[in-house]
Amino acid sequence: VVSASALIIGDEILSGKIQDENSLVLARTLFEQGVRLTRIEVIPDDIDKIASCVRQMSKESDFVFTSGGIGPTHDDKTYEALAKAFGLKMSYHPETLRGFVEYQTLYAPDKPLNEARKKMAFLPEPCEIIHTEGLWVPLVVLGNVYILPGVPSLFARMLEGVKHRFKGPAIERVLIYTQKSEGDIAAELEAVQNAFPQVAIGSYPKYGLPEYMVMLSLEGTDKEAVHEAARLVEAAVEGYRKL
Amino acid sequence: VVSASALIIGDEILSGKIQDENSLVLARTLFEQGVRLTRIEVIPDDIDKIASCVRQMSKESDFVFTSGGIGPTHDDKTYEALAKAFGLKMSYHPETLRGFVEYQTLYAPDKPLNEARKKMAFLPEPCEIIHTEGLWVPLVVLGNVYILPGVPSLFARMLEGVKHRFKGPAIERVLIYTQKSEGDIAAELEAVQNAFPQVAIGSYPKYGLPEYMVMLSLEGTDKEAVHEAARLVEAAVEGYRKL
Repeated sequence: VVSASALIIGDEILSGKIQDENSLVLARTLFEQGVRLTRIEVIPDDIDKIASCVRQMSKESDFVFTSGGIGPTHDDKTYEALAKAFGLKMSYHPETLRGFVEYQTLYAPDKPLNEARKKMAFLPEPCEIIHTEGLWVPLVVLGNVYILPGVPSLFARMLEGVKHRFKGPAIERVLIYTQKSEGDIAAELEAVQNAFPQVAIGSYPKYGLPEYMVMLSLEGTDKEAVHEAARLVEAAVEGYRKL
Repeated sequence: VVSASALIIGDEILSGKIQDENSLVLARTLFEQGVRLTRIEVIPDDIDKIASCVRQMSKESDFVFTSGGIGPTHDDKTYEALAKAFGLKMSYHPETLRGFVEYQTLYAPDKPLNEARKKMAFLPEPCEIIHTEGLWVPLVVLGNVYILPGVPSLFARMLEGVKHRFKGPAIERVLIYTQKSEGDIAAELEAVQNAFPQVAIGSYPKYGLPEYMVMLSLEGTDKEAVHEAARLVEAAVEGYRKL
């Protein structure tokens, strides 16, 4: 199993000002890549908290993704926190700075490369830099940690550009919908689950929809087992699949 | 400071099938109550992981809220995990069972109180039970841990019913919007932040909107300081407030 963790850095999410959209995009992308996302944490823009979380996740998971805190303002502390997490120094990254100058000259002559903007090239050293087509913000990689921006459109584009690096055995998924309620199908589901321990069977009630009462999910890397279990569940719950 | 943590339990969120809506509702509610949400974790439906997370959060925070895993199916493991976390036995809770029978008789004669449904009254002992007007699902409380359902409409109703229990010093918030970009206002923001360390100043760029480039947030329990800092920021960034 290839595993991943997500660290969403942002006071604005914890105080309910802004909804986190990035962890959903990450979850879907990793699922498609066969990588299991096993933990998402949302924490404040606090250097010590970021550092200790990242260190822990970096040990536990094959890949770690952080979101947020890499901008030019005083509340952006992720690079500094990551340097602290891994005992690294920080310095201006020459190639990244050069990229900023080029971008600024070509596309943003009214946006001088001042101290604040240069801060976005003040990075832990050594690090790997991945360039995303069309973006001037770098994707910084430290070991197994990928440091992405919090802005959802940037996060999604960077992830799309780099996702080929993360790959596990394909996970087969079948979704089955039923008009029965959970309490009336629980015993049947459990029987199928016991017969197919290698298939993860999940049951998710949805209230207030006319189409179905419960969505059932069957997932696993053993494709044949997933489909055999799905047939049994479908029959037992008088379910249907969406096209 | 009164603090809280959220534990969102659900494979379906980690695999991107379902978006977590509950942590946003919780974040907004707690902010209004003056309680600081300091951590959100999303983890799988795994007894040991739930138990260890809850134990940790229960020590760190004044209040802990869990979401998910209290239904009648085999993949609902939260009550068992909570019992394990605190070394408690489990037993059928007589009053809750009685409530189920009443509800079933009155409103759901076609939904027998079978083993699966009875599982929802098989609770850690001792526990506190809070009844929510109009709902038959109990809100179970173990010490400082509040165990809520994953279904968003139920989660929101239960939280609304119980929120008066969570109360910290009122947090004042001012939001200011500007057409300037972050790199051009960072120095000014930092100066105000340094002058008002008791005010949390956050800067959140938003791409692709005509109305503004950056939303600035000023928060703190020192109301006067928040408003004084907000005036300085507003002037420095040529900002405006929404009505």
